[in-house]
Amino acid sequence: MIRVIAFDADDTLWHNESVFQATETQFTQLLAAYADEQSIRDRLLQTESRNLAHFGYGVKGFTLSMIESAIELTAGQIVGRDVQTIIDWGREMMHMPVDLLDGVAETIETLAKEYRLVLVTKGDLFDQEAKLARSGVGQHFSDVQIVSDKTVATYRAIIQREAVAPDELVMVGNSLRSDVLPACDAGARAVHIPYHLTWAHERVAEDALAGREFARLSSIRELPEWVAARAARSRLIGS
Amino acid sequence: MIRVIAFDADDTLWHNESVFQATETQFTQLLAAYADEQSIRDRLLQTESRNLAHFGYGVKGFTLSMIESAIELTAGQIVGRDVQTIIDWGREMMHMPVDLLDGVAETIETLAKEYRLVLVTKGDLFDQEAKLARSGVGQHFSDVQIVSDKTVATYRAIIQREAVAPDELVMVGNSLRSDVLPACDAGARAVHIPYHLTWAHERVAEDALAGREFARLSSIRELPEWVAARAARSRLIGS
Repeated sequence: MIRVIAFDADDTLWHNESVFQATETQFTQLLAAYADEQSIRDRLLQTESRNLAHFGYGVKGFTLSMIESAIELTAGQIVGRDVQTIIDWGREMMHMPVDLLDGVAETIETLAKEYRLVLVTKGDLFDQEAKLARSGVGQHFSDVQIVSDKTVATYRAIIQREAVAPDELVMVGNSLRSDVLPACDAGARAVHIPYHLTWAHERVAEDALAGREFARLSSIRELPEWVAARAARSRLIGS
Repeated sequence: MIRVIAFDADDTLWHNESVFQATETQFTQLLAAYADEQSIRDRLLQTESRNLAHFGYGVKGFTLSMIESAIELTAGQIVGRDVQTIIDWGREMMHMPVDLLDGVAETIETLAKEYRLVLVTKGDLFDQEAKLARSGVGQHFSDVQIVSDKTVATYRAIIQREAVAPDELVMVGNSLRSDVLPACDAGARAVHIPYHLTWAHERVAEDALAGREFARLSSIRELPEWVAARAARSRLIGS
């Protein structure tokens, strides 16, 4: 029996990585005189990965990482105007219209009639609250958990908070590393819906998935049918 | 009857504004060749206030505001090395040891034996979680709410979540604007324990307090006695 459907937000409900990658492309253009495109991308990823432990996920940490990478790549020669341009990009990202993925609005509305929906997203509190408010689907979620990272403990806490058995909760998201693996390891069900772009930091080796059971759908539109099939099966086997 | 004691964190449980002000002083020294100290402080406060709507509270937004102010104050002449210095300050602030205010450890431990304690703090999720983990008092709180801003709605939600009557919850904090006023307006009790420094953004005119009833203590050490006196009075009047 499925009682609670938990959703990731970025790249599951709305486009996100595409916004970051578009800014990253502008960043490579800003610094084109100093380094080739791939070196700029590599340096930025290194700086971001290092800074995750200091600044966490989200736009503000990304903006600080762009500035720091720019200082390194230009050997300190970057001018104030270009630093300002980077900060302006950060501010624009914080106010970007929320662009729902195809099928999200209808699917969320449909599922909300039969199941308790919760949102589990990592990143910057201020940024994620603002996006949810702009998304137009916020009212369908009975709980919103904005967390600094998604671990097995995160999913255990959500299962406990929702007062359900682990396998009565299904986690739906685009990231194997953050949504699928830790949810499986907490005993929940998991549905992977890949997004066409994956941030290098979120990639996992295929063998990391060994021994886990989860479903993979190609669109959120397939989710109501998948959930209904699980419910029908539970009834048949009397569980 | 008091059932739940809610605490603010920054400048109520641990020193915070003093850390920001120390960094601000270093910032005025970094830019001393470009402007006088007061102009630098004024410009930084302007930039911070403007950026609150874009970046929210916390160290990362403050760091971005310092960089932006530096670009403006130097008419874009700031060098990469100095921008890096500012980012390094931000990173240091994120890892600063958590310095509890006098009496906090004992008082929290004492109160936790008789009351449900919750933490209500605004700011950056990642930063606040890290501070709570380093504080050594985290285990005494049954719930931790990190919110992007503290409004009447924030306190109503906490009262509902704790399933108590509004006046069974007391909010304890150093900010009239964020802790006392909105908590009073939500029907909760409030205790103001001033900190020796107040960020200009948190200051309110005295007349904003008209019509509200709240207590003012000079130290958290006085809180157990204050709460016990309220409990005794409730018993006397049979409420």
